[in-house]
Amino acid sequence: MRIAPLALAGIAAVAVPAIAQRAAPPAPVKVDPAVAKARDAALKDDVAYDIVEGLTTEVGQRLAATEAEARARAWAVVKLKALGFKNVHIETYMMPVWVRGEEKAEIVGPYPQKLVLAALGRSGATPPEGITAPVVYFPTFNDLLAAPDGSLTGKIAFVSNQMKAAQDGSGYGAYGAARFVGPNIAAKKGAAAIIIRSIGSDHGRWPHTGGTNWAPGVTPIPAAALSVADAEQLERIFTRTDKVTLHLTLTPRTLPDAESGNVIGEVPGTDPKAGTIVIGGHLDSWDLATGAIDDGAGVAITTAAAKWLLDGPRPRRTIRIVWFGAEEPGGFGGEAYAKAHATEKFALAAESDFGADNVWRFSTNFPDSAKAIGDRLGVALAPLGIVRSREVAGDGTDVGPLFKLGTAAVDLNQNGIRYFDWHHTPEDTLDKIDIEQMRQNVAAWTAMLWIVANAPEDWDRTTPKGG
Amino acid sequence: MRIAPLALAGIAAVAVPAIAQRAAPPAPVKVDPAVAKARDAALKDDVAYDIVEGLTTEVGQRLAATEAEARARAWAVVKLKALGFKNVHIETYMMPVWVRGEEKAEIVGPYPQKLVLAALGRSGATPPEGITAPVVYFPTFNDLLAAPDGSLTGKIAFVSNQMKAAQDGSGYGAYGAARFVGPNIAAKKGAAAIIIRSIGSDHGRWPHTGGTNWAPGVTPIPAAALSVADAEQLERIFTRTDKVTLHLTLTPRTLPDAESGNVIGEVPGTDPKAGTIVIGGHLDSWDLATGAIDDGAGVAITTAAAKWLLDGPRPRRTIRIVWFGAEEPGGFGGEAYAKAHATEKFALAAESDFGADNVWRFSTNFPDSAKAIGDRLGVALAPLGIVRSREVAGDGTDVGPLFKLGTAAVDLNQNGIRYFDWHHTPEDTLDKIDIEQMRQNVAAWTAMLWIVANAPEDWDRTTPKGG
Repeated sequence: MRIAPLALAGIAAVAVPAIAQRAAPPAPVKVDPAVAKARDAALKDDVAYDIVEGLTTEVGQRLAATEAEARARAWAVVKLKALGFKNVHIETYMMPVWVRGEEKAEIVGPYPQKLVLAALGRSGATPPEGITAPVVYFPTFNDLLAAPDGSLTGKIAFVSNQMKAAQDGSGYGAYGAARFVGPNIAAKKGAAAIIIRSIGSDHGRWPHTGGTNWAPGVTPIPAAALSVADAEQLERIFTRTDKVTLHLTLTPRTLPDAESGNVIGEVPGTDPKAGTIVIGGHLDSWDLATGAIDDGAGVAITTAAAKWLLDGPRPRRTIRIVWFGAEEPGGFGGEAYAKAHATEKFALAAESDFGADNVWRFSTNFPDSAKAIGDRLGVALAPLGIVRSREVAGDGTDVGPLFKLGTAAVDLNQNGIRYFDWHHTPEDTLDKIDIEQMRQNVAAWTAMLWIVANAPEDWDRTTPKGG
Repeated sequence: MRIAPLALAGIAAVAVPAIAQRAAPPAPVKVDPAVAKARDAALKDDVAYDIVEGLTTEVGQRLAATEAEARARAWAVVKLKALGFKNVHIETYMMPVWVRGEEKAEIVGPYPQKLVLAALGRSGATPPEGITAPVVYFPTFNDLLAAPDGSLTGKIAFVSNQMKAAQDGSGYGAYGAARFVGPNIAAKKGAAAIIIRSIGSDHGRWPHTGGTNWAPGVTPIPAAALSVADAEQLERIFTRTDKVTLHLTLTPRTLPDAESGNVIGEVPGTDPKAGTIVIGGHLDSWDLATGAIDDGAGVAITTAAAKWLLDGPRPRRTIRIVWFGAEEPGGFGGEAYAKAHATEKFALAAESDFGADNVWRFSTNFPDSAKAIGDRLGVALAPLGIVRSREVAGDGTDVGPLFKLGTAAVDLNQNGIRYFDWHHTPEDTLDKIDIEQMRQNVAAWTAMLWIVANAPEDWDRTTPKGG
């Protein structure tokens, strides 16, 4: 890519203002040499891979609030204790349970053939024998929005909405609306059911599941994601005719409320008044795969990094690992955690929930009294190929409720180019983990934790991102 | 790769003997300039992609001897007539029909989880409620062979047999034995069922189906292929314990004999006594996908090449396209064709059944009187990046029975590095076709057909490969 001079100047002004704008070089940022030592040791980490290998092999899928997630919590407690973490325990909460049923789709005409799809989380159900209805094709989500109210009565809406991969994962927000709210919109317009092109960057035949949301008063309709290949097939059929009839069977169920929980462990600090650092990922997964990248990797990376501090000099601040439950159905674990701990003093919250590929960028959200920490992070992370972002930190479903309380944030952004090829599909398995990239993650987290946990600055609340 | 001088000398001696071994340059090989013109025109071909796009979209999967394959034959007749081929007709035959049923596998202990698998063609069935049995792990096919007779009674054999990709597809022969004959061996040793690692070069979660063979007198047992990722998961579990129990449900059925057929069309030649050229691929597919690379591509490439000759000067020899039926269950179409036409004079038989990636190599099997054709092919194909092989031509399930009759052969070998990632899985869909590589195939086949169809030499039988 050719970079225009103006754009380059703009980047330079943000990224390295001191060098670009002053005649004299800036004062060097002082970082404890112990940070580089810990970071480089963590590049040889084996703990993270051991965790994700064990969790995905010995537990498998971990759908929220099911017996599988309960087995995962028991596994986590054993593992965290074996690693030497302190105060290992489970904090439970109750929540609704949605489970997949039968899911089948077949074009009745003009070209009879089966299509591969998966129900979306919280999808409604068809009768056991399925429904047969004409399909209305919307090339984009915006086309669905433009459909007149009532125009979909008795019909199946098909929204083919082509997500593209992006390093920062921004395609998910842009294209994900078709899944997040498309079914709700189709239901309001009278549709009998909705099928969407999977929110994924691949062209394969596995569908991408994921939760959808219903506004109060809207009765859920059957809602499913076609694999990208099947959506493209259906698009090709619509180039030949607009008369397509589908037979659709989806029989998911919502069960009575059941128990889920967060699993917690600690690296105790020396200064309880300095505030606790909360890090983690989510323990639950969708039911289609073993959840290696979503989010076995996240609990593994953050726990392995904390382990490097556990085995080193005792940090100033307590580091608390949380393996959050029930993230996928809507962040129940994160909400329960923040509610139960709302009065505690937190120095930082950060999560890892975007696979295990290299961290390429970081951002922070500290109050003014602690902003210098970001400079030290920049120096410590640069040797790992990680640059500082101009964004304000504060992403994450599980730690989001802590950010709303004013907790400071560091985001370590992973390269998401491959992530949405496999996200929420049966392909989210161990083989997708690149162990060397996972080690780079552990090293980045180790350096970050070392710096923040031992920071001499004191701070309380910050202004949340966008707040 | 560093090539040792000795090896390089060996290659040179075979590939370019004249240049390497003589002081004087060889006499140039004379090729009609019309060949290069036709070949280069075919590099812009749109017919092949149109065929494979239409067949996979408008028919979809085409399991042998089912109504779907019958729809495919009807589609083929319309398409071949529309393209202008002569003598378009169907030749039918009867055959047994095997259809997939339910297929489920779940580890009962020690780590409960579902595994993804697909029944192999001609697999036996479990009772509808499935069977629960201990699993015996064989890392390789050879380990299964070494198991004592009777040692598998009441058990499920698991053969994890790791295929590697190879440009010439040779991994399929080497590792495929686990599928071709593994179930028969396990049955003879008393196994209740067998699951094998898919014969595939990927690491994904789609299983690779494919036919298996039972010796006379052996009662078929339930036989299925795990996806490679699921086989690797089971291998990891066997690193922790050798006590694994599986619940397996497979309910395929064999139906009464039904009709299948070959679809035929011709480019009429001027000299009936010169013998007919038979080319084609197979029309049927496995039931899991739309059969784009296996073998929509093959019928598309060979038909598109014949179309370039149909639209040019009338060739000396008749070119007959055959879209063979029922290749996947065991070459029923090819056998029926050879039986029905055993007394005809054939000048050549050649098939395309290895996807649509570039042709990289060719071989021939002409009798001495026509060997010079190979030299002309070498000159005409070299600009497409195609080299001459030292192998004797004569590969292909559908044209194999014609080779046994002494029919001359040309093999145009496609690059098979990607092929076994998708072979016999639900991923065998249109998006796997690279249109530019498919055009290179059409150009190679066009040049080959032009040269062979117009060759002034006359020949009758040749000695079959290995015969």
